[in-house]
Amino acid sequence: MTKQTYTTGLGTSNADSITLLGHDLASELLGKTSFGELAFWLITKKRPSKSELVMFEAVLTALADHGFTPTAIAARLTYTSAPDSLQGALAAGLLGGGSRFLGVTEDCAKFLADTLHAHTSKEPGARLPTNEVGWDELAASVMAARKQEGKFVPGLGHPVHKVQDPRTPVLFALSREHGTYGPHLALFEAFGRVAPRVLGKALPLNGAGVCGAVLADLGLPMGVLRGVALLARCAGLLGHLVEEQTDPIGIDVYMNVDRNIDYQPPPR
Amino acid sequence: MTKQTYTTGLGTSNADSITLLGHDLASELLGKTSFGELAFWLITKKRPSKSELVMFEAVLTALADHGFTPTAIAARLTYTSAPDSLQGALAAGLLGGGSRFLGVTEDCAKFLADTLHAHTSKEPGARLPTNEVGWDELAASVMAARKQEGKFVPGLGHPVHKVQDPRTPVLFALSREHGTYGPHLALFEAFGRVAPRVLGKALPLNGAGVCGAVLADLGLPMGVLRGVALLARCAGLLGHLVEEQTDPIGIDVYMNVDRNIDYQPPPR
Amino acid sequence: MTKQTYTTGLGTSNADSITLLGHDLASELLGKTSFGELAFWLITKKRPSKSELVMFEAVLTALADHGFTPTAIAARLTYTSAPDSLQGALAAGLLGGGSRFLGVTEDCAKFLADTLHAHTSKEPGARLPTNEVGWDELAASVMAARKQEGKFVPGLGHPVHKVQDPRTPVLFALSREHGTYGPHLALFEAFGRVAPRVLGKALPLNGAGVCGAVLADLGLPMGVLRGVALLARCAGLLGHLVEEQTDPIGIDVYMNVDRNIDYQPPPR
Amino acid sequence: MTKQTYTTGLGTSNADSITLLGHDLASELLGKTSFGELAFWLITKKRPSKSELVMFEAVLTALADHGFTPTAIAARLTYTSAPDSLQGALAAGLLGGGSRFLGVTEDCAKFLADTLHAHTSKEPGARLPTNEVGWDELAASVMAARKQEGKFVPGLGHPVHKVQDPRTPVLFALSREHGTYGPHLALFEAFGRVAPRVLGKALPLNGAGVCGAVLADLGLPMGVLRGVALLARCAGLLGHLVEEQTDPIGIDVYMNVDRNIDYQPPPR
Repeated sequence: MTKQTYTTGLGTSNADSITLLGHDLASELLGKTSFGELAFWLITKKRPSKSELVMFEAVLTALADHGFTPTAIAARLTYTSAPDSLQGALAAGLLGGGSRFLGVTEDCAKFLADTLHAHTSKEPGARLPTNEVGWDELAASVMAARKQEGKFVPGLGHPVHKVQDPRTPVLFALSREHGTYGPHLALFEAFGRVAPRVLGKALPLNGAGVCGAVLADLGLPMGVLRGVALLARCAGLLGHLVEEQTDPIGIDVYMNVDRNIDYQPPPR
Repeated sequence: MTKQTYTTGLGTSNADSITLLGHDLASELLGKTSFGELAFWLITKKRPSKSELVMFEAVLTALADHGFTPTAIAARLTYTSAPDSLQGALAAGLLGGGSRFLGVTEDCAKFLADTLHAHTSKEPGARLPTNEVGWDELAASVMAARKQEGKFVPGLGHPVHKVQDPRTPVLFALSREHGTYGPHLALFEAFGRVAPRVLGKALPLNGAGVCGAVLADLGLPMGVLRGVALLARCAGLLGHLVEEQTDPIGIDVYMNVDRNIDYQPPPR
Repeated sequence: MTKQTYTTGLGTSNADSITLLGHDLASELLGKTSFGELAFWLITKKRPSKSELVMFEAVLTALADHGFTPTAIAARLTYTSAPDSLQGALAAGLLGGGSRFLGVTEDCAKFLADTLHAHTSKEPGARLPTNEVGWDELAASVMAARKQEGKFVPGLGHPVHKVQDPRTPVLFALSREHGTYGPHLALFEAFGRVAPRVLGKALPLNGAGVCGAVLADLGLPMGVLRGVALLARCAGLLGHLVEEQTDPIGIDVYMNVDRNIDYQPPPR
Repeated sequence: MTKQTYTTGLGTSNADSITLLGHDLASELLGKTSFGELAFWLITKKRPSKSELVMFEAVLTALADHGFTPTAIAARLTYTSAPDSLQGALAAGLLGGGSRFLGVTEDCAKFLADTLHAHTSKEPGARLPTNEVGWDELAASVMAARKQEGKFVPGLGHPVHKVQDPRTPVLFALSREHGTYGPHLALFEAFGRVAPRVLGKALPLNGAGVCGAVLADLGLPMGVLRGVALLARCAGLLGHLVEEQTDPIGIDVYMNVDRNIDYQPPPR
């Protein structure tokens, strides 16, 4: 049942015109759409409203760069070693966008979505909470159950921002202001509120986790959330690679490792 | 002389705050900067003016997706084979961003910049042309010299848009409208005008080449122009990967190749 | 507790000598070790016996190339697009080495190891079977339990070799001949024997799965089994890239897709 | 003229058999070919002689690992960040296999091949030297010409092994012993002999450069020499990734960079 045609709704062209997302690229898009808008549109096949766009771009801004992360250092070292291939250095940096560093955004969103789904499909007529008390009740029962299983709630806690992740309150405020605050954010916020009571200590809501909840409330498909984080990081990595061209650190990282080897060969 | 500190001007953080490009991320950037603006800023260390941003985003829009390019197909096949690693599929797609496909943007910009530099450094007091006649003269002499060496001018001609690349007139018009039309665009436009006279046939200015000239006139460093094309393509590839999740073609591409093998083993 | 020194037991060098795995590279290894032997040694920190090496190289041979797999096509398309970066094309090919295609080797080995571990740790004094009847009993009970959960046994069945994977009997025979046949192979073989009885139909033992069992019986760490498959595939991909240099198919794959687009733009 | 069939001479299969390089994988190759032999065969489409294989494997051994190179560190950092994707970490490491680090092998071989070609095609009947005096004469004239152009001879000198690269004399001796010493090695050796006279100082022949000359004398296509270095490095990187699983350094590298930031934001 192999198909002989290949379906896409993104770009296509003929001798006279280029079409993107069903629009004429030259006359309808160039100079008339921002890159953030286009990225949202390419991913969801839906042009964002102004509010959706603000939130999407806030997430991209929040995730673009965190300084010398392992991924940024890996990209720079790859550039040191192969300066002829900028795409290789960028790709090396993005390959670190997996479970541990960029994963919080995706993991948190999936956990929230799964929890919401489990709640509403538990019994006929089950509904999502409509007020803070209701959300807290749901969050507390889920958190208590996970605690008993020895599992944590994804997106709670941050290795550096131990009291509060500075991105968190701003992303919540923007979501309310722009009318995109939905059940994922409501549930995540409730987890933050009930943590002291259920876990015995306050834990900050991780900003990258909030980003996941924002994107889920915007309706982005779960399977691409990691991709949004990668797009954001792509811009940050390009910044690092320009810095590596003008003010390199790759050789120093390498030398500081290579000069401090503790050599432990296997037994002969 | 290995340094023990590592310089960056991008992101950094402490327990209470996150700083990006010298600004407080939470209070000064989130919700207040578009992703295109941030990307320009990360790459150039300079916040773009409104006009610069329109042109930068027009370029990103022009380069984001061209349908089933080899890079898009490679990304989709990689996803087919390793759906657990979205970052791997994205990286595979970006790795095709080399000399042949995405290279026009960079090659064209470099050629224009080198030509301008050679002209002004040829003799003391040499200046760039100030009118169309002057640009045509410069373009014609350079083009004639290359013709004699059997070399072409990068960015002239397009495999599909044989008469006119539809992006080209719009990008020129936008550059004029937004006041970012500079010597790279002027020289490239002149190459288009003199081609019939010097080469004996009209050749369209490749839109990806115009993008290179636009970015060069915006002052972006040459070494990162390929990176801008990669950032644009990152958005397009994410669109392809979402389509691959919902309406896959990877398996069909694979089967249509694998069922039509012409097996030519080496002699035994 | 960040360490300031970096431990390795692989390579190191000073002005006069290069050391690899605790041996002098120049006088003790060059011309005296095969590449397969070195790879086994680098991965396990143990020089293989002659028998271990035969089995390790048989696995590498079995996994090196399967013709136009998605990964081989992705590598070739990437080379088409960026011929200046052989490493990028190779990396793109390896990035497909994930859960679906190369994953069988790893998944099968892990499943076998987990099953063996569960059996021996179930009760004090529990031992592995010592004869075929015992292995069949263990295999049948595990397979029946998985069937009830709606799960399959990794490594059973093959999309092309529906009756028998031709690699399978040879790998079993070689393992017996070389004395490396151990509990992972014994259990896997038993799954094959009991399948008709438990599942109601015979299923061939996938050769890539047998490779996983062979490597597990050789004592390779589970975390690197996918890496062995990647090393094998690295050689195959280089073969494809040389073919792409001399007798390219990338452009044809691209054109045959790009000319058969079914364009389905999103609603405006 | 797009082709509808796809040519390969590597692997293919049907329901009953798997063919590799025109041989039945199960009955003719498994257990009967070493991995090094298979790799040579896949790349060149020619089964190596015993002598060719020794030299090929000596090169792979010489290039497999150099400790904490930028590529090894990049692979480890990528694993730190995305431990779920071994293939991504391996790919990141290989992406550093570009012009600067792994490039010597390829650059040196190409330079030697170009020099030999230029010499024999200079005039009708021109032949390669037949003794040391002749080789020295050729080497000295080429080296003097390059010196005048301000260019160096690729493969001369080594950042660590300033007097002698320990791999160099062994590789030359092995080539002589196995009868694979040809014009590329002869010319490279001559460059080493004449350097003191022409450049005024002795420069060691870089071992990675000798590897390039060995591979060229074995008749490997120039376009794949970088690939041989990548295959060798693949084994070394797997060793590093196993070490990263058991005795990690990635987090320490990251922390030692991230704690020593010199933050230089752009002017506001």
